[in-house]
Order: sequence, then structure tokens, then C-alpha cells
Amino acid sequence: MNQQDSFKQSDEFKRGMQDIIVDTTSVSFVDGVNGRLFYRGINIAELAAHATFEETAWLLLSGKLPTKSKLEGFQWGLRNMSRTQEKVLRIIEEMPQHSHPLFVLQTGLSALACIDRSEEYLEEDNYIENVMRIIAQSPVILSAAYRHYLGVPLLEPRSDLSFVENFIYMLFGKIPTKNQTRCMEIALIIQMDHGFNSSTFTARAVASTLTNFYSATSAAVGALSGSLHGGASELVVEMLKNAKNSNDIEKYTRDLLHSGAKIMGMGHRVYKTIDPRAIIFRDLLTQLTSKDEKESDLKLLTRIEIEARKYFEEKMMPVFANVDFWSGAVYKKLGIHPILYPAIFAAARMVGWCAHILELRQNNKLYRPTSHYIGEVNIPYIPLEQR
Amino acid sequence: MNQQDSFKQSDEFKRGMQDIIVDTTSVSFVDGVNGRLFYRGINIAELAAHATFEETAWLLLSGKLPTKSKLEGFQWGLRNMSRTQEKVLRIIEEMPQHSHPLFVLQTGLSALACIDRSEEYLEEDNYIENVMRIIAQSPVILSAAYRHYLGVPLLEPRSDLSFVENFIYMLFGKIPTKNQTRCMEIALIIQMDHGFNSSTFTARAVASTLTNFYSATSAAVGALSGSLHGGASELVVEMLKNAKNSNDIEKYTRDLLHSGAKIMGMGHRVYKTIDPRAIIFRDLLTQLTSKDEKESDLKLLTRIEIEARKYFEEKMMPVFANVDFWSGAVYKKLGIHPILYPAIFAAARMVGWCAHILELRQNNKLYRPTSHYIGEVNIPYIPLEQR
Repeated sequence: MNQQDSFKQSDEFKRGMQDIIVDTTSVSFVDGVNGRLFYRGINIAELAAHATFEETAWLLLSGKLPTKSKLEGFQWGLRNMSRTQEKVLRIIEEMPQHSHPLFVLQTGLSALACIDRSEEYLEEDNYIENVMRIIAQSPVILSAAYRHYLGVPLLEPRSDLSFVENFIYMLFGKIPTKNQTRCMEIALIIQMDHGFNSSTFTARAVASTLTNFYSATSAAVGALSGSLHGGASELVVEMLKNAKNSNDIEKYTRDLLHSGAKIMGMGHRVYKTIDPRAIIFRDLLTQLTSKDEKESDLKLLTRIEIEARKYFEEKMMPVFANVDFWSGAVYKKLGIHPILYPAIFAAARMVGWCAHILELRQNNKLYRPTSHYIGEVNIPYIPLEQR
Repeated sequence: MNQQDSFKQSDEFKRGMQDIIVDTTSVSFVDGVNGRLFYRGINIAELAAHATFEETAWLLLSGKLPTKSKLEGFQWGLRNMSRTQEKVLRIIEEMPQHSHPLFVLQTGLSALACIDRSEEYLEEDNYIENVMRIIAQSPVILSAAYRHYLGVPLLEPRSDLSFVENFIYMLFGKIPTKNQTRCMEIALIIQMDHGFNSSTFTARAVASTLTNFYSATSAAVGALSGSLHGGASELVVEMLKNAKNSNDIEKYTRDLLHSGAKIMGMGHRVYKTIDPRAIIFRDLLTQLTSKDEKESDLKLLTRIEIEARKYFEEKMMPVFANVDFWSGAVYKKLGIHPILYPAIFAAARMVGWCAHILELRQNNKLYRPTSHYIGEVNIPYIPLEQR
């Protein structure tokens, strides 16, 4: 069947593959109608309330919550595999100082395809060890990239800290409080996976050619770096600043909407109700906000949300806050530089990408779609002098 | 619509998206039924007979064959943009000596997203200049990677050579003959584009998030590096060696087929007849083979092909030689190391990736498909001590 035939048969197709099923999965389920997100069948609200980073990562990768001994082995492995790779550090140091940590991560992962000569990696079907190495190396690269960006010395991970504590320690050089660690842990947990979003789909498409996992996750980071995918939480904080500077939040919001601009962090292709991750991030922001604080980001964002909801309800459009609407304000409360917002997203989503690659590798199928050709055929080649 | 609803509606779907139309294109048309391939409507056989690398690249990128002045501007631009980037070279030198040139290219392109601070690149909508930089830098990175692999000093491009001459010169340190240059030029031309293959689809999917072009083409190189996509020509040469070592080519071929193994370089998802690129590569091999040569690769490959075709015809299966069946033998005649076969493919396909990214950017749509969830929901979280 050639492209033209298949086009006649299907008669129409959806650009961007919206609602087009490309594969089965049991990693996560985005219930867009009811506003729920499940990892391996468990509601993320339960995981955010009870689970650790390592438990949730193991759940996504293996399909089940770990037993005590599995969990200890996994924690030990992640810690062991997070030692810094000299050659990767030297590559990071060759990058210009103001390189965005996401591109440094894309570069570093791709380089690791050649640099990592560890036994676990070189034995190709050591799948779980391979993804553990990637999950362990990502915060190391990201924090090295961030400290390179700041122009301060890089820090080695510490063997007495958990995965999340180490990530914060390597970024900022301070051991975080229990409260800070748990906030960051919840943020990472609820952003680990989300169906076939663009970067996860990219990870699967690239892995489907049977290239190695470093190469596939590097490609996924590339997809995440696009402004239509990973960049909105930074822009919400920007919007918040502008809203604050205007004297009338409601008017600012209405003017923005009437001008045809988007409200950053609102609307989602899949959710037809409130994004369950937005609820959890709003709860985190509430916890982090003192009741005495007058013009808190929590209050201001709530006013923007209410005004925008009013506008959309008049137009009968179901538009709700998404994960990015509240996450930036949470990071800001934790004192995190905006350039790191998408980097934190990437460190979390790395787990999902790896889980999807593992799932695909169990029953691999090359992702090779087709196109509908809309040009001509049999145009003759005209020599240069006759053009 | 959630995933389960949409699954009920479509009732079935094709894993790997075979024959699923994901977008329109006017870049190339793969006529699988008649065994023809068109770039912007022009048959590749005509381009292989008459056109230069630069002419064909401009055709793919812009939609039309260039006028004399456009062509001169394009040639000048490519030459000007192929000066070596110091920081990229230093990153290449940090990679282990035996790094595969494809992963070095993936790494180098991703690093260029930060390293390239040229005016053309930083003005974001300078699309054509951006893709020219990528096309110009690719042979520079690939040849630096190859010479790093060999452990010999890197070479700067020469301003008096054409794009193809420079590529060969930078790889091997010798200025090629007219005949060598034209062989390589034809090989590059006929591999520039080929519908929505996995790497091109990856380039489009990543670019659809609105990330920069370096990041998207880096991801595409990752897809190309998989053994299901870019790697068969090397394996054909390997098979040829084994066939030679056996004393009976026909028996070797039959034994291979009866054992259930694939014949490398035969069969294609789209072509139901002979791959038009295979015909051109076979012609090149014929030209490069002296009539007096007794056990030439041309003769041996022909015997393998005839024997395999006989086997498949008996089974009523239309299986034909594809582009990889003859290309390796051509490269071998040109004295090219097998590790470079996929690198040459990448340098050629880079033009197609760039043409597709340009096309998508004219009317961008995020590539975000969906999945069919096959797991459970509402599984409770069980605390660690109760597992």
C-alpha cells in the first residue's frame, strides 16, 4: 500500500497524532475525564502522600512496589552509579558558561553512550542496570551544569544522603531540611510519567530502532527542551511578576485573555478537568506559604485562576490549571533558580522515559509511520543553465 | 476522549504506526509500488545522473532547484559555515578514542545548541541559515570523530574544495579524484531523504516541541544509530566475507535462509519491488569493478541476490534488495572503513531532516499521540512493611 492509497482509505488524519493510539502501555494512565493519573495502577495522590522517590521509580520501572530488599538494592545501586564521570565533567566544562542545563544533559547523556564502559552497561541486555545508571547520572549532570552556569565549583554526591537529598545538595551545596526534601520529592514523584507525551514518545520512537538507552533518553531531553513541552512553569513565574506590577490582578488577567494571549499554565490537551498534579502542587504551595503573608503568590495565582476560569466558563470552554501553573511558585518558595525548573522536570521524567523504554524492549516494534504526499511527481530535472 | 474510549472507537491499531499517516509532506515521495523515489517531485535517478550535492540539498530545503546565483550563495554559505568550532573539537577529544562517529555527531550537535553563538543562529527565525550551519558542521564533526578514532590529527576544511571533496579530504587527508568524488556525491544524493523513516520522524517529533534545530537533529542521529535503522550496509559486507569463506555461495545463502536468518540488505517495509537506490548503488559498483576481476563483490552479491530471490519467489514473498545491499560494497571499493558507512548515511540524511524541520516549522503542530492503557487502576498503595 503506498501513501496515496492509504490516504484514500483513511480519508482524514489528525496532524500531531492527537488521540491516535500508537502503542499499548501499562506504565501510566492519564484519566483525562476524571482528572486522575495512575502509575502502574496506583493513584499519584497516594504516592505523593506516602511513597519515596526510589519506591515510585522502582514501581514505574518494574511494575510493582518494591519489597524491602529490592528497595535497598535499588537505593544502593543508584548511589553507587551516581559517582561522577571525569570525562563527562570535562565535556561540561567545555560548554559555554551560560549553557542551558537541559542541553548539557542532552549532550552528556549522548556522550555517555561512548564514555560509559562499565560492565553493566556493556552487557547489552542488562536493561534494569542500564536505566539505573541513566537515572543516577542525570542529577549529577544537571547539577554540574547548574554550578558551571553559576561559575562555582562542582560537588560530588555524598554517600550518606538519599537520591533527592543528594540532588538538592549537589545543586546548592547545602544539606536540605526534611521539609525541603519532601517538597522536592513530591514534585519529582508527580512529574515522573504522563502517558505518551512528546518526550516520552520520542524516547520510545528512538529506542524502537534498538539504539542504546543513553542515545534514546538524550533525544527525549531534546523534545522536553521545546517551549511547547517543558517550559511553562518558568513563564508562569514571569507572568506572576507582571501581574504583581500591574495594580489590578483581575484586570491584568482579563486584558491578557481579551488580547488573545494564553494564560501560562492553563489548559491541557488531555485533561478536561483540573490536572491532578496541579492540585498537589497547590497543596505544597499552601504548606509553604505563611498565613500572615499578604500578597503571597498563592493568593495572586488563585485570583488569576478564578478570573481566567470565569472568562473560559462564559465561553463554555473547559480550561483548567495544569501542572505548570503552581509548580513554578513552589520552586520559587524553595529558592530555586528558574533555569532549573525544566531541569527538575527532566530529572523526574527520566524515570518515566526509562520505564517506557524497558516496556518497549520487552516486545520491540520499530516506530515507522507514513506521510501523505501533497507534492507533484515526475517533474523533470532542468539543467542549471536553463533555469 | 480518554484512551479507553478512543481505543473502543478505533477497535484496532497498528503497533509501530505502519501505514499510519501522521502528517502531510511535499519533501519526498516514496512510491513503494513502482519502486520510485522523488525529491520535491524529481526522480532521484535524474538527480543521480545530473545534479550536485549542493543543488539537490537546495532542492530539498527550498522546494526548487536553485538558480545560478542562489546556488553560488548556498555553496558560499556552506563553505563559510564549515569552519571548525574549537569547543566542539575539544569535546570530541574528550570522548574515548573508539567512540562511534554517530554518537560523537549526536553529542556534537547537541553541544552546538549552546556553543554556536553566531548571529544567524541566535536570530531564531533565520531558519535556512540555521539548517545550513547544521549541514555544514556535520561532515566536520564526523571526520573529526573518525580521525580521533584512528588517532591521527584532525584536518581543517579547505576553501578551494566542494562540499563532497572536503568531506572526503577531511576524512582521509587526500584530495579525491573526480571519479571518487562523483561516486560519493551520488551516494550522498540518493540517501538524503526517504519519507517518514524513523529518524526523520524523530527529527519532526522533537522539532514539533519548538526546540532548536541542533537539538532536533541530534535526536534524529540517535534514531539513526539503531540497528533496525542505519546499520545494515556494514552487516552486508560482513555477510559477504562469510559467503566468500564458505566454498559455495548458493548453499551458504540457502542455509542462511532455511535457518530462519535474514539476508542483510534485503526487504523493506515500503518497497514492494526493487529499491530504486539499490539500482543506483549497483550501477556504481559495476562502474567501480574491473571486468577482469574474478571473484568480485559484484558477482558474489549478484549470486546471493539471485539465490535469495529464488527462495522468496517459491514462498510467494516479494522480497528485494534494498539500499543497504549494494552500498557497503561500493564504500569498500572506495576504501572506506565500515565504521563510516552509517556516518555517510547520517551526513546525507541530515539534509532531509533539515528539510522536514523547515517544512514543519511553516505550520507547526505538536506531535503528541496517545496510548492504549492495558493495566489496572485504583490499586492501593501498600506500605513497605506490609509488602
